[in-house]
Amino acid sequence: MEEAQAQSKNALKKAEKQAKMAAAKAEKAAKTLPVVGGAGKKANDSKEIIGITVSKAENFPIWYQELVLKAELVEYYSEISGFYILRPAAMYIWNGIRKFFQEKIEEMGIEETNFPMFLSSKSLEKRLTSDAGEVGIRDLRTRATTEHVEGFAPELAWVTKAGDKDLEVPVAVRPTSEAVMYPYYRKWIRSHRDLPFRLNQWNNVVRWEAKQTTPFIRTREFLWQEGHTAHLTEELAAKEVLEILDLYAAVYNELLAVPVVRGKKTENEKFAGALWTSTCEAYIPTNGRGIQGATSHALGQNFSKMFDISVEDPEKKQDKIHVWQNSWGLSTRVIGVMVMLHGDDKGLVIPPRISKLQVILIPVGLTAKTTPEERTKLLTQLDELQSTLKKAKVRADVDTRDNYSPGYKFADWELKGVPLRLEFGPKDAAQAVVSYARRDTGAKGTIPIANLATEVPEILEIIQKDMYNRADESFKSHRLVLREWEKVVPALDSRNVVLIPFCEEPSCEERIKELTKGQEQEPGPDGLKQPTMGMKSLCIPFDQPDIIVANETKCLNPECGRFAKSWTMFGRSY
Amino acid sequence: MEEAQAQSKNALKKAEKQAKMAAAKAEKAAKTLPVVGGAGKKANDSKEIIGITVSKAENFPIWYQELVLKAELVEYYSEISGFYILRPAAMYIWNGIRKFFQEKIEEMGIEETNFPMFLSSKSLEKRLTSDAGEVGIRDLRTRATTEHVEGFAPELAWVTKAGDKDLEVPVAVRPTSEAVMYPYYRKWIRSHRDLPFRLNQWNNVVRWEAKQTTPFIRTREFLWQEGHTAHLTEELAAKEVLEILDLYAAVYNELLAVPVVRGKKTENEKFAGALWTSTCEAYIPTNGRGIQGATSHALGQNFSKMFDISVEDPEKKQDKIHVWQNSWGLSTRVIGVMVMLHGDDKGLVIPPRISKLQVILIPVGLTAKTTPEERTKLLTQLDELQSTLKKAKVRADVDTRDNYSPGYKFADWELKGVPLRLEFGPKDAAQAVVSYARRDTGAKGTIPIANLATEVPEILEIIQKDMYNRADESFKSHRLVLREWEKVVPALDSRNVVLIPFCEEPSCEERIKELTKGQEQEPGPDGLKQPTMGMKSLCIPFDQPDIIVANETKCLNPECGRFAKSWTMFGRSY
Repeated sequence: MEEAQAQSKNALKKAEKQAKMAAAKAEKAAKTLPVVGGAGKKANDSKEIIGITVSKAENFPIWYQELVLKAELVEYYSEISGFYILRPAAMYIWNGIRKFFQEKIEEMGIEETNFPMFLSSKSLEKRLTSDAGEVGIRDLRTRATTEHVEGFAPELAWVTKAGDKDLEVPVAVRPTSEAVMYPYYRKWIRSHRDLPFRLNQWNNVVRWEAKQTTPFIRTREFLWQEGHTAHLTEELAAKEVLEILDLYAAVYNELLAVPVVRGKKTENEKFAGALWTSTCEAYIPTNGRGIQGATSHALGQNFSKMFDISVEDPEKKQDKIHVWQNSWGLSTRVIGVMVMLHGDDKGLVIPPRISKLQVILIPVGLTAKTTPEERTKLLTQLDELQSTLKKAKVRADVDTRDNYSPGYKFADWELKGVPLRLEFGPKDAAQAVVSYARRDTGAKGTIPIANLATEVPEILEIIQKDMYNRADESFKSHRLVLREWEKVVPALDSRNVVLIPFCEEPSCEERIKELTKGQEQEPGPDGLKQPTMGMKSLCIPFDQPDIIVANETKCLNPECGRFAKSWTMFGRSY
Repeated sequence: MEEAQAQSKNALKKAEKQAKMAAAKAEKAAKTLPVVGGAGKKANDSKEIIGITVSKAENFPIWYQELVLKAELVEYYSEISGFYILRPAAMYIWNGIRKFFQEKIEEMGIEETNFPMFLSSKSLEKRLTSDAGEVGIRDLRTRATTEHVEGFAPELAWVTKAGDKDLEVPVAVRPTSEAVMYPYYRKWIRSHRDLPFRLNQWNNVVRWEAKQTTPFIRTREFLWQEGHTAHLTEELAAKEVLEILDLYAAVYNELLAVPVVRGKKTENEKFAGALWTSTCEAYIPTNGRGIQGATSHALGQNFSKMFDISVEDPEKKQDKIHVWQNSWGLSTRVIGVMVMLHGDDKGLVIPPRISKLQVILIPVGLTAKTTPEERTKLLTQLDELQSTLKKAKVRADVDTRDNYSPGYKFADWELKGVPLRLEFGPKDAAQAVVSYARRDTGAKGTIPIANLATEVPEILEIIQKDMYNRADESFKSHRLVLREWEKVVPALDSRNVVLIPFCEEPSCEERIKELTKGQEQEPGPDGLKQPTMGMKSLCIPFDQPDIIVANETKCLNPECGRFAKSWTMFGRSY
């Protein structure tokens, strides 16, 4: 174990060094970008300069870091490592997701709250030690809630000073708000009539990760929503867990065109403090890794017993029922998954439904011979096209910059991921058409101006669906159902995730991780020369690929010998 | 000065003690509230129990603290003093304001961003000391930017540890983001074509205040938006400062029914780092105090010189222009101003446009003799009334709780501030009317059911306007234009703010504050036996009440002797 950790630490250090070098390179490239300067010179048309310098297939991590920077989704926050600035292009996507999800949970009757960002060390300690005034509190702590408090402890950011004075009691920035909120749930939930009791908040949390950070995917501060609800029965709570999971899947499927597999986490991978955790798992074809999309937890009575959140039993008046709680969260990570999945060597590819700009109109065919009148006429026509599109509720803009060539503009908007480019020049005008190019496939064609208001929305919807379908086919064809252990590592090496019969025992899962670790290899699609990572369980899919025959189907781990409980999806993962 | 400070400290301590006692009392009252229990008993009908126990006129601060707690706007966060939990009733109002303001600034082309919440101590120090590697930086610091950094220093919350490890460089939680954001403005603004450059973020900030905290009004953490923009010229920047100020005034006037006076802050009262600050000032009639509503700052070139944010002059190519910056913010304080102004001894009074529930329908006239059929019929009719209102876009609900009397429900919804109560019983049904009661005036009447969809929205708009007009009249009649110094203190004691000719000199303003401090008095409407506070300048109103004759009109301070520059509004204030 320790050797493996040391190995993986070395690999991490290497990766960090490479990443830093790449970031510096990207930074430099960005600085030398031919900007719209006062000198008013025609900018250089070369795609190399504004585009991505590394191929997605050749060096995936570096490609990703360059892309999020150059497409202006994030800026590195050089002051403090592991933090990133979210730029308008990223905030637009996040706000679209927020609006979609907020509307759905409002319909469910979930209300909004805002708790302080700090957690007192006293309230953590009170629950960690059984001091004289708190006799019995310790007894109420379950293994799960102990794991919750202790699990987040290494990542807590502690405020110890205000101004130049030391605080009497240090406070920690919330990593998640269970321990902040639930003392008040005890106070507010007084009767079974108060149930279900359901609050959500949109905020920022801090987890001071020691692991290497990656924009959106793993950052020390991130934006998310955290829902915290309480129910009278286990069944009602479980129903909501899955309703929320479906909403998370809808964010991925319907907005981001990202297919996900819904399922349950194994004991090893569930949330610290949960009874069970449901999850959406996505897949990155380029390196064959699984990535956790969003999780919705059934906390059971673990926290309600710890915080003594209870109501009188409506059936048997004298009995006390500890409420059944859930918590669920969706973070800005979703943006990273979308970028990794859909981006290509030209830049971002944003699904139309979530793209701030759906259509960019670019004037073409203007030459040195074009008269000012012809030029003005063309721009007027472009404005008319834009307003036609706006009336059809298409988010469209015209790129009227006069110090860039059409080629430069094409590359620029490809980098930014705008789903549909419309080109319009004197030749198009003569034929009463516009020429289009799809960002996702590069497919080109023309649309009669008369049909613009109907055909453009149709093409956008086709792009949205095609993006999803391609990703779905890719995920499906890389989810291998395996019945032979020998095929597992080769399958991982060929960038698949695998579904195998599994006993669901934590120790067996640990062993499987060890057994599937590889030797140091030539740099692969993730660009790193390092021992290949062992596989982790991603989830136990709700949609099982086949039957597990009780007391007959064996766990696939050749050293295990136990009977399998389910087909479990394993993979190398983020 | 020091004596006065000591006096005021004592007063503060007393106030804090009183506030704590009141909070404990309110807490106790809340706990003994007859809740909807399993026992199913009829709840006590007494208004004393659920209502506010202190009169607004008699003890304003305690009334306020009880009200925000009992009306469920906030919960005290007992873990850490100075922090409050915003409950759904408060978040609804804040989100309504957010939506309104966000739409307006989007139309202006202002984009959204999200910067990290931490500020590195290095970046603060770099700018505070001129070390070997940073020669010249000190020279770029203006007095204003030094004041900015040093002004916030005593209130910074410092993170010094992550997990159990000390951070190499401590980081502070943002109190505002000028110093976090502007290094990136330098990087992003490369040409005059990038101007105006305008970003806004909605977030939480921390200012570890030593002063006594009050929910919404002064808290150690609060929610706000902060806009940060850069412009090519002083004129363009100034135009935006006032456009934003008008939006802030619209939030107060149009949503919260709170009149404000727009003006410019004096040198003493402007934002640390600003060239000048514009402000909306509101007025609380109960204690006659002014309260700053929201501020929009012209930062001039103070920060752009410090952070070297410049572009090439588009007119004279060789010249460098430091950009003209603005920053502007609106916080959750607005909710507190609304509560203080409109609330009464029965509870909140929320203006209809911003109220989550605009109408509460309450079944009345059900007695022991009512048959189950009659009861069901009435409830069905109430559902129909509700759906009629919903179709008319009125936010309405029916209170069907069967373990509370109508009287209890009336008091409960009055406490929560719902603008319009509709009562409906067998007698109303027989006449095809509903009975109504306005929350703001208590006025009662009936509405034919046939007219419900038109009359209810009309009444709601009338309530909105009446609330504004009453507050506006009150503010106008308590804004005294004074030409004699002797009248100033009596005017303040009669709960007025005053407009006086003023020289605008900082030292004179300090002296005016001293001269208007009173002796210890009997407890006034603010419930505190303490020396009356001296008056501060609130703003120099854009709308001047009269002409100031240059070199003729004298500053009203009898010790001053300088000529006046403007009519300035002074008052005791928050």
